[in-house]
Amino acid sequence: MRITIIGSGNVATHLAAAFKNAGHRIVQVYSRDMQHAALLAYHVKADAIDDLKQVDPETDLFVIAVKDDAIATIANQLAGFKKLTVHTSGATDLESLSAIIPQAGVFYPLQTFSKEKEIDFWQVPLCIEGVDETVTTELENLAQTISNRVYRIRSDQRKTLHLAAVFACNFPNYLYDVARTLLANKNMDFELLRPLILETAEKVQDNLPAYVQTGPAVREDELTMANHLKMLDDQPQLKMIYELLSQGIITNKKAGH
Amino acid sequence: MRITIIGSGNVATHLAAAFKNAGHRIVQVYSRDMQHAALLAYHVKADAIDDLKQVDPETDLFVIAVKDDAIATIANQLAGFKKLTVHTSGATDLESLSAIIPQAGVFYPLQTFSKEKEIDFWQVPLCIEGVDETVTTELENLAQTISNRVYRIRSDQRKTLHLAAVFACNFPNYLYDVARTLLANKNMDFELLRPLILETAEKVQDNLPAYVQTGPAVREDELTMANHLKMLDDQPQLKMIYELLSQGIITNKKAGH
Repeated sequence: MRITIIGSGNVATHLAAAFKNAGHRIVQVYSRDMQHAALLAYHVKADAIDDLKQVDPETDLFVIAVKDDAIATIANQLAGFKKLTVHTSGATDLESLSAIIPQAGVFYPLQTFSKEKEIDFWQVPLCIEGVDETVTTELENLAQTISNRVYRIRSDQRKTLHLAAVFACNFPNYLYDVARTLLANKNMDFELLRPLILETAEKVQDNLPAYVQTGPAVREDELTMANHLKMLDDQPQLKMIYELLSQGIITNKKAGH
Repeated sequence: MRITIIGSGNVATHLAAAFKNAGHRIVQVYSRDMQHAALLAYHVKADAIDDLKQVDPETDLFVIAVKDDAIATIANQLAGFKKLTVHTSGATDLESLSAIIPQAGVFYPLQTFSKEKEIDFWQVPLCIEGVDETVTTELENLAQTISNRVYRIRSDQRKTLHLAAVFACNFPNYLYDVARTLLANKNMDFELLRPLILETAEKVQDNLPAYVQTGPAVREDELTMANHLKMLDDQPQLKMIYELLSQGIITNKKAGH
């Protein structure tokens, strides 16, 4: 397929590379910043542009991988080409694209991408949605050329998925940082916690989280929880987080989850 | 070394196996429940006992791996043997053991153990403390026969470490379950989130968490956060968790962590 990438951030970069590796042709990479466009374009052997007036109409698919609030603006500028166009956003309706471009879809990779770390794209869940069965099937076929985990997900489901990803990824990462800070205050290195963090994530690869829950809250070990709260006396925000999450664990257990 | 294991839970089981694999001799395994004692004893070729009166005095080390509130009771019954004795608890002072048995120490493995999952003990951080340099060195040498990650950690540090482990392990696991429930309510499978969870933990193996933080809070994407909060309107507890953790991420970012 001939694919045009709009954007040069983490999602654009990892998607473009996956498409290229699968044998698709990346026609152009667009970014407002020519240096960013050029860098990604170089990697995927495409042309770089920083003006949507330079878009090559000889393409089969526009992939809009930009910030959520820029999707509509970009879509308006691409509407005239009447091509298959997708956005890659977890939090944005299909509607907001299909209202502008009829042949619209969503191509949402559910993963946390970083410039620092390579990723095996075959393991990345791709959430697909199209305006109709023809578009959906076409996107599904494309998705299967780069990932083994392709799912049809409706807009309302995808919004929930995006929210769930905040709980499963962004918030745990923040808690890792809380733990790191607690250690640093006592001259201990974050290295001590890394194996524990990895094992916690690995355990739920084969089990449901409620089944492998450990710690004082699930044991209802009131003494340890009281001691922990006392240690957080000078950090009221962390104390509140500790109380709320412990209460959640206890409630879950009582509900027999 | 000749080692006697007091307890038959997850820590006792994994430690006993690691000692046995390293060539140490497990003399006896004690549990109040004879079946539990016998099961572990069978695995590590030791004798099983369910009465501390049957303890074989021909041992070099007692490892007390029982619930925190049972440590003192057990220690009192072992005091007469005057042997090197350690507990394995993150939340318990060395003091509470050394007040009963002078040759006391701590042997705290910082990992989440489960019956379901084998673990590479060489990667498990072992936190060592002894009443004096002789005991500490002896425990350190023993620890190095089963792990590549041996740390000297004082009682006050270990308490902080134990608290930090709740933030780095128990709370993230709970948040995985929150995410699972959100998905289940929209007929989506937890499988969708597993690669994201694993990648989030893998990212911090080489980076500090604050450096790889993603999501709406760190982008200060107010619109997405408002939408997420609206979706949690009927779950006030989750809403509060969302608000607190997002606020924590924003505060961290502003502090330039």
